[in-house]
Amino acid sequence: MQKTIEFKTKPSIISTYTVAGPKESSGPIGNYIHKQLKEDTFGEKTFEKAECKMLSAAIKGSIETAKFKESEIGALFSGDLLNQIISASFSARDFDIPYIGIYSACSTMSQSIAMASSFINAGYIDNAVCATGSHFATAERQYRYPLELGCTRPPQAQWTVTGAGSCLITKHKKNFPSITKCTFGRVVDFGVIDANNMGAAMAPACADTILKHFLNTNTTPKDYDLILTGDLGTLGSRLLKELLWEKGYELYDNHVDCGEMIYTINEKEYQGASGAGCSAVVLNSFIYDKLINKKLKRILFSATGALLSTLSSQQGESIPGISHLVELEVFDE
Amino acid sequence: MQKTIEFKTKPSIISTYTVAGPKESSGPIGNYIHKQLKEDTFGEKTFEKAECKMLSAAIKGSIETAKFKESEIGALFSGDLLNQIISASFSARDFDIPYIGIYSACSTMSQSIAMASSFINAGYIDNAVCATGSHFATAERQYRYPLELGCTRPPQAQWTVTGAGSCLITKHKKNFPSITKCTFGRVVDFGVIDANNMGAAMAPACADTILKHFLNTNTTPKDYDLILTGDLGTLGSRLLKELLWEKGYELYDNHVDCGEMIYTINEKEYQGASGAGCSAVVLNSFIYDKLINKKLKRILFSATGALLSTLSSQQGESIPGISHLVELEVFDE
Repeated sequence: MQKTIEFKTKPSIISTYTVAGPKESSGPIGNYIHKQLKEDTFGEKTFEKAECKMLSAAIKGSIETAKFKESEIGALFSGDLLNQIISASFSARDFDIPYIGIYSACSTMSQSIAMASSFINAGYIDNAVCATGSHFATAERQYRYPLELGCTRPPQAQWTVTGAGSCLITKHKKNFPSITKCTFGRVVDFGVIDANNMGAAMAPACADTILKHFLNTNTTPKDYDLILTGDLGTLGSRLLKELLWEKGYELYDNHVDCGEMIYTINEKEYQGASGAGCSAVVLNSFIYDKLINKKLKRILFSATGALLSTLSSQQGESIPGISHLVELEVFDE
Repeated sequence: MQKTIEFKTKPSIISTYTVAGPKESSGPIGNYIHKQLKEDTFGEKTFEKAECKMLSAAIKGSIETAKFKESEIGALFSGDLLNQIISASFSARDFDIPYIGIYSACSTMSQSIAMASSFINAGYIDNAVCATGSHFATAERQYRYPLELGCTRPPQAQWTVTGAGSCLITKHKKNFPSITKCTFGRVVDFGVIDANNMGAAMAPACADTILKHFLNTNTTPKDYDLILTGDLGTLGSRLLKELLWEKGYELYDNHVDCGEMIYTINEKEYQGASGAGCSAVVLNSFIYDKLINKKLKRILFSATGALLSTLSSQQGESIPGISHLVELEVFDE
């Protein structure tokens, strides 16, 4: 039974912090990114170490911005795209905070917010940090081809974001964006086998979760200022709209995908951005700014994950997708 | 702040199911394993597909044993050792249940129980399934060397369990083993860099979590019938005892490690068993039997995870460890 969980205590996101590479920082939402890197190695010897350092910087930034001490944080919910989520685990070494490792690929940002809100709403902990990130070079190397090979990118490809985002969630605080509901997604597999076409693999899972949320809460797209999806990209976003249109919900007016927002459109990225860092950066910079300034007052955020590994693809498996959803609201208090 | 969470509603484990390979099934606790495989490919073409099939069988088994329908299960908490936890994600495709992917390597069994109990105790869902597994051949191939290479195993090596375990947790049910508390662990890194010596890498994290649980609950080892650790193996188990002895807690009488229980001691396994499937199989077969028959009435279960990847090892990183703990009790009701 796929329930929508309601958080009656309305936990609030009281601070966020984002770090991103030069390409992301020079894009349309670049000015909202807290730490804009000049080079995507972040002073490290390997891209993996750079990814880990970005994530640590985001976590630290969100704690410092809120003027909290590590000892006040009850749990760190984090994960990433690398094998054995090493960026998250190795970042967690830097903090004296209980660490809850999660994996849902690029749905990590919404999964972590849903879990942290569940724990805070239940009174188990008072404060939690949610964080994730990704790096173009580590993702290409791990999932597709090493950059050195100079492979041509197909038109359905997305560009993995080099960036990390983190937010600090506490008990309800007036006038801060609050998490009021969440719907955990199911694994949905439409049989897509092209590891370059993640948008198509994830769109059905995203449609499934959003639809369940509408039904459970008796709402329609019109009830929200924005329906923000993870990193479906241009093609995936169109698929999502069509899938929901078939079910009687028209998403055209107020839907945008994080993957369509982060880069200035040019040929190389084709379908836009992807990666766990994509929705983490967009949500915790530009979107958070709109929420805190009450330009947006009620939104759905449904990040989307493609649950493949190179090995599963090599063994001929298709790419299952997942999407976890959180509802964010800010009130006039 | 590392809290111990108390579950006042005492969620219960009402059914378990385990699947294991021929080697595990012929060991000391083999008779307690629900499904004993005759060959470790489980009829599949690859070991990875076999691992996934074992996990699906365990999940299905625990739901059927409890005579539940899939539609009654609020969430599936699952993870495994493979890159991008593909066993868990691909198993989840088989079930129409919201899926929450987690990663803490071999600490997955206790992490999933802790999370499921947190959700049920808070009233978010009524029932949840927790499952994990591992496979000797997939783990060797991924973390060390392909079996075909015929590498010599060093004396500090453990043997990854071919097996999967699942349990179904519901609201409190009289005379069933119940989860009364949990303590989420921190990432602890003592600088161990030998990927064959997981026990030494994980023991400090395990000691850290158990110590915090003793302090938070004002208990000592004497308060428990058993303190069960994940898969430290013989060497790691000795290290844990010494680390806790240094802090004033004597664990000698009532501590046992799942890694020391599953195989008949012989030269090849050296330090005993490991893998996420190790504690999943031991807890959900032999230990569950002792709990339900009230031979054990109050135990701590602290599974342990080594948070390495081949890439982190190749880049010279040490192996951080983590251990999440749950307290299990059965009452005379």
